[in-house]
Amino acid sequence: MRSERINALLEQYQPGYGLPAGFYTNPDLLPADIGLLEPLWYVAGHSSEIPEPGDTKLVSLFGESVIVVRGSDRVVRAFYNVCSHRAARLCGESAKGLRQFTCPYHNWSYSLEGKVKSRRLEVIFDETFDPDAHNLRPCHLRVLEGLIFLSVSDTPTDFDAAYQPFSDIFRFYGIADAKVIRIEGFSANANWKTLVENTIDPYHVPVVHPNFTRTRTPAYWQAAASTRTEEVIAAATQAEQEMKEWEAALTQLPDVTGVIVQDGEHDDQFRWLVRGPLAPGYQSETIGGKRVAPLMGQFTESDEASVFSNLNPLDSLFISVDHASIFSIRPLAHDQIYWQTTWLVDKDAQEGQDYDTDEVCEFYAEVNAEDFPIWERTYQGATSRAYRPGRLAPQESFIGEFQRWYVRRLRQQVETPATLSV
Amino acid sequence: MRSERINALLEQYQPGYGLPAGFYTNPDLLPADIGLLEPLWYVAGHSSEIPEPGDTKLVSLFGESVIVVRGSDRVVRAFYNVCSHRAARLCGESAKGLRQFTCPYHNWSYSLEGKVKSRRLEVIFDETFDPDAHNLRPCHLRVLEGLIFLSVSDTPTDFDAAYQPFSDIFRFYGIADAKVIRIEGFSANANWKTLVENTIDPYHVPVVHPNFTRTRTPAYWQAAASTRTEEVIAAATQAEQEMKEWEAALTQLPDVTGVIVQDGEHDDQFRWLVRGPLAPGYQSETIGGKRVAPLMGQFTESDEASVFSNLNPLDSLFISVDHASIFSIRPLAHDQIYWQTTWLVDKDAQEGQDYDTDEVCEFYAEVNAEDFPIWERTYQGATSRAYRPGRLAPQESFIGEFQRWYVRRLRQQVETPATLSV
Amino acid sequence: MRSERINALLEQYQPGYGLPAGFYTNPDLLPADIGLLEPLWYVAGHSSEIPEPGDTKLVSLFGESVIVVRGSDRVVRAFYNVCSHRAARLCGESAKGLRQFTCPYHNWSYSLEGKVKSRRLEVIFDETFDPDAHNLRPCHLRVLEGLIFLSVSDTPTDFDAAYQPFSDIFRFYGIADAKVIRIEGFSANANWKTLVENTIDPYHVPVVHPNFTRTRTPAYWQAAASTRTEEVIAAATQAEQEMKEWEAALTQLPDVTGVIVQDGEHDDQFRWLVRGPLAPGYQSETIGGKRVAPLMGQFTESDEASVFSNLNPLDSLFISVDHASIFSIRPLAHDQIYWQTTWLVDKDAQEGQDYDTDEVCEFYAEVNAEDFPIWERTYQGATSRAYRPGRLAPQESFIGEFQRWYVRRLRQQVETPATLSV
Repeated sequence: MRSERINALLEQYQPGYGLPAGFYTNPDLLPADIGLLEPLWYVAGHSSEIPEPGDTKLVSLFGESVIVVRGSDRVVRAFYNVCSHRAARLCGESAKGLRQFTCPYHNWSYSLEGKVKSRRLEVIFDETFDPDAHNLRPCHLRVLEGLIFLSVSDTPTDFDAAYQPFSDIFRFYGIADAKVIRIEGFSANANWKTLVENTIDPYHVPVVHPNFTRTRTPAYWQAAASTRTEEVIAAATQAEQEMKEWEAALTQLPDVTGVIVQDGEHDDQFRWLVRGPLAPGYQSETIGGKRVAPLMGQFTESDEASVFSNLNPLDSLFISVDHASIFSIRPLAHDQIYWQTTWLVDKDAQEGQDYDTDEVCEFYAEVNAEDFPIWERTYQGATSRAYRPGRLAPQESFIGEFQRWYVRRLRQQVETPATLSV
Repeated sequence: MRSERINALLEQYQPGYGLPAGFYTNPDLLPADIGLLEPLWYVAGHSSEIPEPGDTKLVSLFGESVIVVRGSDRVVRAFYNVCSHRAARLCGESAKGLRQFTCPYHNWSYSLEGKVKSRRLEVIFDETFDPDAHNLRPCHLRVLEGLIFLSVSDTPTDFDAAYQPFSDIFRFYGIADAKVIRIEGFSANANWKTLVENTIDPYHVPVVHPNFTRTRTPAYWQAAASTRTEEVIAAATQAEQEMKEWEAALTQLPDVTGVIVQDGEHDDQFRWLVRGPLAPGYQSETIGGKRVAPLMGQFTESDEASVFSNLNPLDSLFISVDHASIFSIRPLAHDQIYWQTTWLVDKDAQEGQDYDTDEVCEFYAEVNAEDFPIWERTYQGATSRAYRPGRLAPQESFIGEFQRWYVRRLRQQVETPATLSV
Repeated sequence: MRSERINALLEQYQPGYGLPAGFYTNPDLLPADIGLLEPLWYVAGHSSEIPEPGDTKLVSLFGESVIVVRGSDRVVRAFYNVCSHRAARLCGESAKGLRQFTCPYHNWSYSLEGKVKSRRLEVIFDETFDPDAHNLRPCHLRVLEGLIFLSVSDTPTDFDAAYQPFSDIFRFYGIADAKVIRIEGFSANANWKTLVENTIDPYHVPVVHPNFTRTRTPAYWQAAASTRTEEVIAAATQAEQEMKEWEAALTQLPDVTGVIVQDGEHDDQFRWLVRGPLAPGYQSETIGGKRVAPLMGQFTESDEASVFSNLNPLDSLFISVDHASIFSIRPLAHDQIYWQTTWLVDKDAQEGQDYDTDEVCEFYAEVNAEDFPIWERTYQGATSRAYRPGRLAPQESFIGEFQRWYVRRLRQQVETPATLSV
């Protein structure tokens, strides 16, 4: 898409209102969108998925197939799934205990650290063959408290600066010592921004998600509105009081509550983390509030709270004292996304004995099923000639922040036109 | 599509021959085609489908979802199916007896007349919230003798001027007092113009539709040719004689026969209405000619005739004394259409007793099945490098008229380039 | 695709390495690719498929439907499958013993030689109707030793010059006196060049095709490398010795061995034919080497050899003494092809008695199944940002030749820009 046309869209944007329709519906915008998303880091899985040397996980990200592998030295690395000879996909599926990567086309093979095995190649090629020019191309990878992050950008953002603020709370909640018990995904016809905006929108929760709504007090949901009507002021006071009472009673991780990380529109990352009390009687973010798995991390009793975090615009991590869930939006086309949910419990918990996988997963499986038609219906509306950017409600202030962040990043893309070509 | 390229296509067009291939096969022409079709009015259904206040019918037209609703005041209105807040589709399906429209995303609700219900919104927003700016966007709607017409254009053509000439005959045939007994549709891979040209082509009827052919005399079909060969002259004389004999015997609506409405290429609308005698012994346009439902409208006996009408290029209404059928072409892409047939009988007729739905519908269900492969095969031919615009036969003079009308309207589009952007 | 962008791709090409990714993955390149392929001749079938007058075979080639028909005079001709009146596809499927072609739309009919039957048309049209302007459009067709070739170009390459060198060997192997016993096809997601490069690549055979590998000696496969390592020199000497021994013992067609046809990059056609010995004990290119059908052509005993030939970049013909197989790549999109295999045996052989069709076909059915995932995986790799044109191995010298041929032809396309429009 030419920068003139993107600029024309950008000029239509009015803060406090939804994005102009073209931001969702124009297929030609996708390269610029991917260009602005690429430098960030995305969750590719959890180190518990590849516990032993030679264990691999294939990950799809922005059209790429990436091999995440634990090496002989137990270090986790990532390589593009492309043979350096004729480009065939090296791996067809995730695997356990590989000794090396062998291309199915001409048997070129590579060590788990990505080095081409050149003994046979030296017979075939003459002395001008340079093995080092034929190693696998590495992909940027970092591990934070067991969470594996990838970036397919040549120049990713500063990982440590981005995620250091999350470390302590993830450590206390035992994320590094968790294990994946289920991964589920499905695709939906919507723009990725439709889903981001839904994911960070508290306004729709009482309407769409009855069980999710019950995990917090009525005041919590109502207080999100920043208007000064009497009802909202009363709810805000009530919610503040509830927060204080919970903090006063808190014995586990008492210094880390409320909003811990919140990027403004001027940050490079789009991140957010908040910890707050559940509704009275709720031990965990589940249907009815009962714990569904053993306590994780350093907890010896429930903190009667949960953590909502956004690691970037496309990945969220929600944590209760006994389990955690990772939500990932993956753009497939301007009007199609893949939505994946990953559930984790403590690595020592025994299925059948300490937890029932269906029971751990039922809460967010229900939330996903409730949101799915909303995504598609909201996207469909954006394709209408009747679409007008609607005024954002006060409870939608996070959406407004995301949109300003997005618009700023897109403007940067337009100013560096090389990034617009595919 | 740039106007230069459309102009290049327009210059290839030669009256009396088929359209150049690009008019059917070029995907980039679709926005200009929709631009020229939009200002017209299209049949969305029949008022019998939404008899009571709060009854709704969802209608798809040029990619739009439109809610047609009977209000508390029994007036029929239409609104774009888009919430004014975050654009979610308000309605997922047609419904009966709604009290209001409620958005599934954030519970914004609207009266059946499209007004936003602002009581709860005033709690959420501050005093700058303007309810009137958040009502549903209305869609142009008119009702003529029970037929509901929509236009998604901001500036539709003059409805009264267009359809006044149809009123009397529709009234006598009882269209307003009919009811819908079946709606069937399917998609086909063809350009919309392929279907228009097929719909108005009498030349193919004796080849493709044996039962349809039998509803008229042999002279009727042959007389359509305007050449002066002996065979055609004899047939035309014979058909004229048949018409005169039928008119002489006619007691019902005797002053309204032959061609009643016929637009030339210079009209804005593309309309047509003709009434003429069926074959001897035929009471209705059915297999074998027997009546399949009670007499409609003001008839006390069969007029042994039928009415063919085109309400615009995409909608036809064919009427017999006992039933009527609406045929609608809806462009989905440059190479895909949706074809829908709606059957009507008198509103007081009782299914099972006065008529059998399968029997009423079998005639045009068969015609549709016979035409379907023709549509696809004709479109496929247009994609070939061997395609040459063929010379139109005299019986195809309606096709020639449609093409001249289309070419004129397209030329107007090109001269107002703003309409070409999507 | 604009010639500037193609030129930019062409400049990235480096002989001896794979093609730049855009040559495989850019959808806009397809018209130029088809433009350069079109002037060549492609196999449409075998004359045994239409033995009698009025027998027809429908063939798809570059998006065209072509009718291949044996006329009343037993001559084989080809016509575009498009009625000259309204362009409907004349024929829906291959047929036996047609008397004429009749269009299903308006009954226009044509002789088997493509002449419009004008008697009834003269009644319909006036005297200005010119029948000769309404005959079917012929498609270039030639038959060589029973193989039917088509070209959809207006100016195809010189057929005789191209295929004269193949005649003698095809005649000795009895291709003209063969019959088709099975045709099988399937589609794959890959660029057509991915498949060409796979088809002419001996390097992958020992890795991907174990039964194919066994049909030749180990030295044969290894000798293909042109490097001068000790192992390769030894293998080449060994292979040369094997060839000599086979030639010395050869009594059937002894003067025609080794490379018979091999185009350089400067030829217009891309052709290749080689005949060489099978592994010891192999009578035919089958699993285990046993003959699976009666001897063909002029053979009275097996030559213990096989013929590999490329008739153009998209069609190959592999011949053993008892059966032959035609392989055809048909581009459907930049990222999709159709792959078809046709098996032939001697026309007098009796199924069940002289051969078992499954047994004749099992060898290349297996090879196809082994190659299919390679095609898709190689194409997928080309879509990755990690793709780099890999260095071609010495055994891939045919690929390098094909690429130089392709690049030269594409450069010619760019220099005649009219051919780039679709």
